Amino acid sequence: MLITLTTDFGHKDPFVGIMKGVIARINPRATVVDLTHGIPPQDVFGAAMVLRHAAGYFPRETVHVAVVDPGVGSARRPLLFEGDEAYFIGPDNGVLSLLWERQQPKRIIHLSNRTYYYLPTSATFHGRDIFAPIAAYLSLGIAPMAFGERVHHFVRMEWPDVIRSGRSVTGEIVYIDGFGNLVSNIREQDLLGLGFEVISTAVGGITTRGLAPNYAAVEEGHPVTVINSWGLLEVAANKGSAARLFRVGIGEKVYVSAI
Amino acid sequence: MLITLTTDFGHKDPFVGIMKGVIARINPRATVVDLTHGIPPQDVFGAAMVLRHAAGYFPRETVHVAVVDPGVGSARRPLLFEGDEAYFIGPDNGVLSLLWERQQPKRIIHLSNRTYYYLPTSATFHGRDIFAPIAAYLSLGIAPMAFGERVHHFVRMEWPDVIRSGRSVTGEIVYIDGFGNLVSNIREQDLLGLGFEVISTAVGGITTRGLAPNYAAVEEGHPVTVINSWGLLEVAANKGSAARLFRVGIGEKVYVSAI
Amino acid sequence: MLITLTTDFGHKDPFVGIMKGVIARINPRATVVDLTHGIPPQDVFGAAMVLRHAAGYFPRETVHVAVVDPGVGSARRPLLFEGDEAYFIGPDNGVLSLLWERQQPKRIIHLSNRTYYYLPTSATFHGRDIFAPIAAYLSLGIAPMAFGERVHHFVRMEWPDVIRSGRSVTGEIVYIDGFGNLVSNIREQDLLGLGFEVISTAVGGITTRGLAPNYAAVEEGHPVTVINSWGLLEVAANKGSAARLFRVGIGEKVYVSAI
Repeated sequence: MLITLTTDFGHKDPFVGIMKGVIARINPRATVVDLTHGIPPQDVFGAAMVLRHAAGYFPRETVHVAVVDPGVGSARRPLLFEGDEAYFIGPDNGVLSLLWERQQPKRIIHLSNRTYYYLPTSATFHGRDIFAPIAAYLSLGIAPMAFGERVHHFVRMEWPDVIRSGRSVTGEIVYIDGFGNLVSNIREQDLLGLGFEVISTAVGGITTRGLAPNYAAVEEGHPVTVINSWGLLEVAANKGSAARLFRVGIGEKVYVSAI
Repeated sequence: MLITLTTDFGHKDPFVGIMKGVIARINPRATVVDLTHGIPPQDVFGAAMVLRHAAGYFPRETVHVAVVDPGVGSARRPLLFEGDEAYFIGPDNGVLSLLWERQQPKRIIHLSNRTYYYLPTSATFHGRDIFAPIAAYLSLGIAPMAFGERVHHFVRMEWPDVIRSGRSVTGEIVYIDGFGNLVSNIREQDLLGLGFEVISTAVGGITTRGLAPNYAAVEEGHPVTVINSWGLLEVAANKGSAARLFRVGIGEKVYVSAI
Repeated sequence: MLITLTTDFGHKDPFVGIMKGVIARINPRATVVDLTHGIPPQDVFGAAMVLRHAAGYFPRETVHVAVVDPGVGSARRPLLFEGDEAYFIGPDNGVLSLLWERQQPKRIIHLSNRTYYYLPTSATFHGRDIFAPIAAYLSLGIAPMAFGERVHHFVRMEWPDVIRSGRSVTGEIVYIDGFGNLVSNIREQDLLGLGFEVISTAVGGITTRGLAPNYAAVEEGHPVTVINSWGLLEVAANKGSAARLFRVGIGEKVYVSAI
């Protein structure tokens, strides 16, 4: 069975490797895939965004583990979410909450049964002590209810609203990828059915016209608006970093209007 | 079967992980190895250089996937190259072209059969939509011709010439590794048979004498010229970054002469 | 069998991928786990520190390979250490020496038998030419003595002393992780049995009071002292980088005293 890992651990330290060691001791046959360890430190929303848009590409029954956990060791609970297709394990700080907008989890379990922990747990690394071992035991076929008791509430993050008003749609930049592409919260379907034939998109000081079929449709270094691979409106620069060229950051408003 | 991935996706985003998810859904038994995801953004030549010098170390039948693809979604074709020992999949922008200097591909296939795509394809991520799924199906044993039609031409990158003139050889820096070592296009055999007993190497403002048996043959921070693990003449600094210490970049001329 | 890799190769180049190719050609069934490739260039102590604190989390019989090797190609010997639980392969420059403080290696073998090398060896990349292939053959079940002859001495690194004096303990910062947490050489047991009820910890210009149960026990950006997941005293900043906020580097003295 497949286990994915999403963390803010970066690539300097052996923390991800240690989690894989813990998993291998429990289930040597588990396959572990790094979803990303490049989440900015403590950026719970960034990790939630990644899981929301990546989990659907994995096989059924995959166990997704998210460890962006600034509250490690405090009262925040470790949780397991059972979805229709996959499992999700992580702290109850919102990191797994953006997955449950259209569907609800079938079951949520508070991972309170220390039998499955790596003991004694540390104050600073529950990825090693709780999340990795539980993922490994789950991948071995241990029933979810063995890990603790059922709960019904969890911490939810706010997905920022997209506001439609007449012939315009307003959203904001919610993610900037490693290429510097500016990803908004405006979905392709937010633009459909509005009778827009041609749109203009404005973010920061940039304005683009239309939706391009690909980045290379404009000259190098020029801004271009596309629907990206997550179905979201994205403003990029052909062969360049829109974030750097146009100095736009997360939270910047995006205005789309019919022209 | 082994699949390798070479991209400019970096380590911030889940894009590589998503490709692995797509592969695992098609062939759960494929083993995926990251060749590197640290190619500078849009550096097609850098990726071509990496594949040229790394592919030979993998088992026969390995499927190498290269996704440095600034023209994603445009008219550039997705290709599969069949070599004597391995398969190579990527866009037709030269990223796979440095592999075919001494030998020719046995067959080149334009990956036009959408049956094997992840549909609908996006405008921005053919690594996920075309290259990963085709690699996975190929690793399952699907015959190459199933993926499209045979073609005979492909975009070639220029490997810069090494110029020999009497008692000197001129090349240039074609790659700088993460240690700051300056890798030239001058091969060990370009120096052999020239009757050179001792050489001097000049690049930027640095001159070194002879070929050292290893980096540690000079004092710390001093420049040293070696034949590196790819059989190429390389100028390094012992325990330091030659690129930073001597401010040399890609394209800088390298002069080797008999002394 | 599991093989782990610890290097200073970073993530720009295909060097780690090439080692995995070499391993896969010899033992296609070996599972390779990256412990970390983010060791700062030539930081032998940093790699030794990582292996000391990470190796224990892996299954029995794991083969740990360390390649932080500024002396590559020089007279420094390639070694294999057999421990009670695992194998360790790397250059004789101290990178594996911090593992043998409480227990001694059962056997140390100088890897002199070129039959198991990837030949011809290069001047610059023994990770590919010696360490990866030996690890792969070992994982196939080749007996350790086949790889060379037994030796009894190896290069040891100094683990800096922790000094106890009356009601105070002095150590130093030995590792800074990717979050900027300041990890000292003072172990939890160095503080036990000293009759300390409450301690104060001073490092650089910072002083903290007590040991916190977790990072979140203080306000954001404030310094906090914890026992970390390696059992070491660590000074951190809640949701921030202590290294950057307080400008503390490796080697900085840490003073702990009873209050």
